This record gives sequence, structure tokens and C-alpha cells, in this order.
Amino acid sequence: MQEVFEHGRLWPMKKLINDVADVVKDSLFGVEAAHADLVKVDHENKVVYRKDAPIANKVGIISGGGSGHEPLHGGFVGLGMLDAACAGEVFTSPVPDQMFAATKLVDGGAGVLHIVKNYTGDVMNFEMAAEMAAAEGIRVEAVIVADDVAVQDSLYTAGRRGVGLTVLLEKIVGAAAEEGKDLDYLVGLAGRISDNGRSMGMALTGCTVPAAGKPSFDLHDDEIEIGIGIHGEPGRARVANGTAAETAEMLVRPILDDLDYSGSEVIAFVNGMGGTPLIELYIVFNEVAKILAAAGVKVARCLVGNYITSLDMAGCSVTLLKADAEMLQLWDAPVWTPGLRWGK
Amino acid sequence: MQEVFEHGRLWPMKKLINDVADVVKDSLFGVEAAHADLVKVDHENKVVYRKDAPIANKVGIISGGGSGHEPLHGGFVGLGMLDAACAGEVFTSPVPDQMFAATKLVDGGAGVLHIVKNYTGDVMNFEMAAEMAAAEGIRVEAVIVADDVAVQDSLYTAGRRGVGLTVLLEKIVGAAAEEGKDLDYLVGLAGRISDNGRSMGMALTGCTVPAAGKPSFDLHDDEIEIGIGIHGEPGRARVANGTAAETAEMLVRPILDDLDYSGSEVIAFVNGMGGTPLIELYIVFNEVAKILAAAGVKVARCLVGNYITSLDMAGCSVTLLKADAEMLQLWDAPVWTPGLRWGK
Repeated sequence: MQEVFEHGRLWPMKKLINDVADVVKDSLFGVEAAHADLVKVDHENKVVYRKDAPIANKVGIISGGGSGHEPLHGGFVGLGMLDAACAGEVFTSPVPDQMFAATKLVDGGAGVLHIVKNYTGDVMNFEMAAEMAAAEGIRVEAVIVADDVAVQDSLYTAGRRGVGLTVLLEKIVGAAAEEGKDLDYLVGLAGRISDNGRSMGMALTGCTVPAAGKPSFDLHDDEIEIGIGIHGEPGRARVANGTAAETAEMLVRPILDDLDYSGSEVIAFVNGMGGTPLIELYIVFNEVAKILAAAGVKVARCLVGNYITSLDMAGCSVTLLKADAEMLQLWDAPVWTPGLRWGK
Repeated sequence: MQEVFEHGRLWPMKKLINDVADVVKDSLFGVEAAHADLVKVDHENKVVYRKDAPIANKVGIISGGGSGHEPLHGGFVGLGMLDAACAGEVFTSPVPDQMFAATKLVDGGAGVLHIVKNYTGDVMNFEMAAEMAAAEGIRVEAVIVADDVAVQDSLYTAGRRGVGLTVLLEKIVGAAAEEGKDLDYLVGLAGRISDNGRSMGMALTGCTVPAAGKPSFDLHDDEIEIGIGIHGEPGRARVANGTAAETAEMLVRPILDDLDYSGSEVIAFVNGMGGTPLIELYIVFNEVAKILAAAGVKVARCLVGNYITSLDMAGCSVTLLKADAEMLQLWDAPVWTPGLRWGK
């Protein structure tokens, strides 16, 4: 079939979008229309922020990164989690001006914490934004999330990639900030979470970046990729597509080999990549739970669903966080965002 | 490539499952492992039920149907929504024994309401279960949800299909039951919701039933299907894949043509079919909101996400419920289930 360039994109592409140039913009208008009770959107800077920001004497919690991982990060803005999120173009870091704008929007006088997934562009741009903020007298600290055990360096990263642990860290640190903890305390807590969490992902299919118009990579009909990143970066190995039990083993074992979880309580997170339905994620969770039980690791809390996605990629990731009593208490604390909410 | 039958299924099939015969069973074990704080599972009858059931003097609210639509229905069991859900095999009605077992599990002496999506098998089997329960002295009433404006009859249905409105009805009626309303009142409320809600769906791709091993239907690279059902039943028309704005128009207009919404407040629900990422659903929501604003329909509440799915189908549906003050109050009431939760 002939491809034609129309509406600013290559057709055919099976997506519910208008123009490829407007994907992020249109989606943010949708978030604003749907959740006006919780958030506002600075459309010029593509920043989603709490309706009640800035909150006096509360540390502002900010994250952000390339779009295409929804609900991360904009869907996690609200009570008990993020104060603001900066949306870059799809799989592209936001620019420093966006992070700087977000920082000013949420600064309530107690400083601002930047939660940064470990990708070269994100790290550099958040650093520049922190310097710009410092020049205006806003104290900013940053925590780098680098939890992916799959590969040491990758297409987008020096060092380990930041993936699923980001969701758990945003929830827990966000809860502590809501309780009034100061910036130094939050930096320490974030560091402990970072030290105690590991992730590993896999893909059944590639994903299609709207501007590219075709899948980021092709997998044969009978193969899966183990150790994939959230931008479709290559992983550890392409293997035959086996059972969910075998796949779970290939995700959990490298995590347990990387960090000593024996005798620990964990928050276990089975995350969908965006194109995998919930019925399959619960099958994977069941296999993960069995492996952990056999390894003497106790699942104290869990999360199952699509929370840090890769557009329409089919696949999943597993994150395990060794959680102490404080982390569990903060995990249970109220959260009220578009993408994650509880707290009776 | 040669297909081989192994692990009880045709390979290759890109799913995170073990054996095709175990998809529903394994998933229910996963639900139980993940949500033991909220629900229990009767594995023999494949019934997910509230941990605190039966609740004395509260009407028991039950739904169920074929699996493959998760989180519907098992993910909606908990405080303020369902007391139990019966899981059939994928896209296959549960049998009357399952509904009868569920009815007995949740009967607290105030009767039981069956919420039934309008598919021939489901309606017949729920009726038989109600007769079995009546023989044991349990009063059962049923509400049939038939909200899909796309087609009059279909492969699985005489009359309109029951689709997205089911989610809203389960939430609202569940909240009223939690507040202690009696069975007659709930039947009346459910009827009002049924009368005032309409839906329409579309697909970008087919879905693959595990036992079939290949997509339920094929769409050309440049076409979409408008008016599709949640089992991949044919819709109204196959058309060229246009913009999200055009697609939203093709979903919303037939709904507005079918029921007079002018001047009304609505609960607007943009639902993903399972394989469509959230970033696209918010783009669709933005377009739906614009159409409704132009039509003088006020969006009082909304829901955006994957709540009534069709396995891995890419696509979405729109549901609009004309909501009165009581429905809105019940919508806002606390809900605490694996798949839907709020209520500060």
C-alpha cells in the first residue's frame, strides 16, 4: 500500500491522534478538560501542575520527561504525589525552560525536589533548570532514578535506565512531602528508595512513535525481547515467546540476582507497557508472586496495571522495592491524582 | 512460519499467558494474590467476591459475563460497587451455577440485584440462576444494560448490546446499595440509568481470543471500524482512518442523535479497548469535550481509561449518561475496588 503524507503524518498509522505535531498538546488539553478539579496546565510550557500550587512551606515535587509513558508523569500530579510534571515531546526530554517554569510554579518557599529518570537529556536539562532556579533563590535538589537491571548503558543513557521504580518513588516521596517533611529529609528518603528498588522489562512488540509512523523495532512472530527499555531500546536478549511463567522468571531472577531481597518485604509492581491488557498483567503477577514466595520474599503491597508505558508497546515490566516500615506507611498514605488514587 | 501446537496453544501468539485453557483461572489467581485485602475468589465457580460478603441487610450487587473485558467485572468488586462478579471463559457467558453460587455468597437477606449486559447467553443464564435462587428463598431482580447505539441486533445479541454504560451503572447502583437502599429502589435507579445512557465504540485493530490464536477480524492498514462491539462484533461501517476529531464525531453524533441530551449534565466516559494507550484516550476525550460543548451538553463528571476492554483490541468507546443530581452524588460516593477507587 502506498503511504501518503496527510494531516501532518504518514498514513496509514493506527493511532487516535490528529496531527503528529499536536499529540502532546492535544493530550494535555484532554488532561485539563478531564481533571480540572485536580490540575491546571501551563500550555506554553507543557507543565501539568496542582491546582492548589504553590503550597506554602511544602517542598514542591517535580518530575517530567519525554511523553509516551502516560499516566507517568502528568497523571501523577495531585495530592500526595507530584506538584508538577513537565511533558517533553514523545520520547524526548523537556527543555530546561519547562523545568524552570514548573519549579517556579510550585515553589512554596521550602525548596523543590526534581525526580529525574536517568536519561542523558533529562539529567542535563533538569540540572540546567536547577541552576536557573538557584539564580532566583530557589533551592533545588535532584534524585536520579536508575533502577533497570537489564543493561548498563543504552541508547539514551549512561548508566542504568530509570524505569518502573520512578512510579513508586514519586508516590512515596510525594506522600512524605505532603506530610511536611523538609527537602533534606526527602532527598535522603528518595536515595533509600533508589538504593532498594530494581526493575526489568520485556516487549512482545515494538511501539510506534507518531513522528516516525512505523514500529521502533520488529520482533518475529515467535520472539520476545527481554530487558527492553521504555523507549524500545534494545535489551538483553531476544528469545522464543514462552509461557508467562517463563517470562516472569526471566524478569524476576535478574532483579533478585542484583540485590539481596532475602527475608525482605517488597512493594511488587507489575506494569503494562500500554498495549497489553489487564487480564495478562494479572497472569504475570500471579507468576511473579509464586517466584517471590519460593525465594522467601514477602509481597507487602502491590500495584498491577499500566502506569509507565511505552506508547502502544505490548509487554510488561516488574519492579521490586525493598520497603521498610516508613516506606509502607507512606505508600498507604492518601494519594489523589488522575492516574493513582486511594486513601479512605 | 510454521505454527506449532505447544503448551496447549497455537504458537506464535503474542500474549503473556501460560496455557490457553488456563487464561481465566491464572488471571483470577493473580487478582486474588494482588487484592487479598479487598476480595476473595471462589476458584471452583470462578467468582470474585467481597471479602466482607455477605453484608447483613444490604442488597447484594452481582454482575458477570465473559472474560476478556478486564477490569470489568472482577476488578469492580469491593466497597461501593459490586459484591461479586462471575467470570466466564473469554467472551463466553458464565453458566447459571456460577451466578447461583455468587448469589448465595452475597445474599445478606435484603435480596440480590443482577446487572446483566444484553447478550443472549448472559441474559438466559442469569435468568436461570435467579430461578434457582428463588427456589431457595432469595429474592433476585435483574437489570439488563443495552446501551450500544451502533446496531440493533448482532452476533451475540437480540436488541442492543450492553457495553460502556455497564461500568457507570455498576458504580452508581453499587453506591446506592452501600448507602442501604432497598432492592425495589435499586431496580428503579438502574432502570433510570439504563434509559439515560448510550454508547458507541470503534476499533483500530481486531483482538485475539487466546483459544483462536489469531485476530478476530482484519482491518486494512488504513481503515477503522465504527460501531464495533466489545467482542469484535461487526459495527456500522469501515471507514478510512482519519483524525481523532473525525473519529470522535463518528462516535458522539450517533449518541446525540439517539437521545436528547440538550441542556443536560452528563457523565462522559472515554474507554480504551485494551490495546490503546492513555495518551490517545486523552486526545479523544479532548475532542469529545469540544463536541459536547458545541452541542450545549455539560460534562459534569468524566472517566478516561481502560475499564471495559476487548482483550488487546486497539480502539475506544464513548459513553454518555444524562445524570440527575442523585446519580452525580452516587457517582462521587466512595468506591474502593481493584479497578476503580476514590472517595476522600
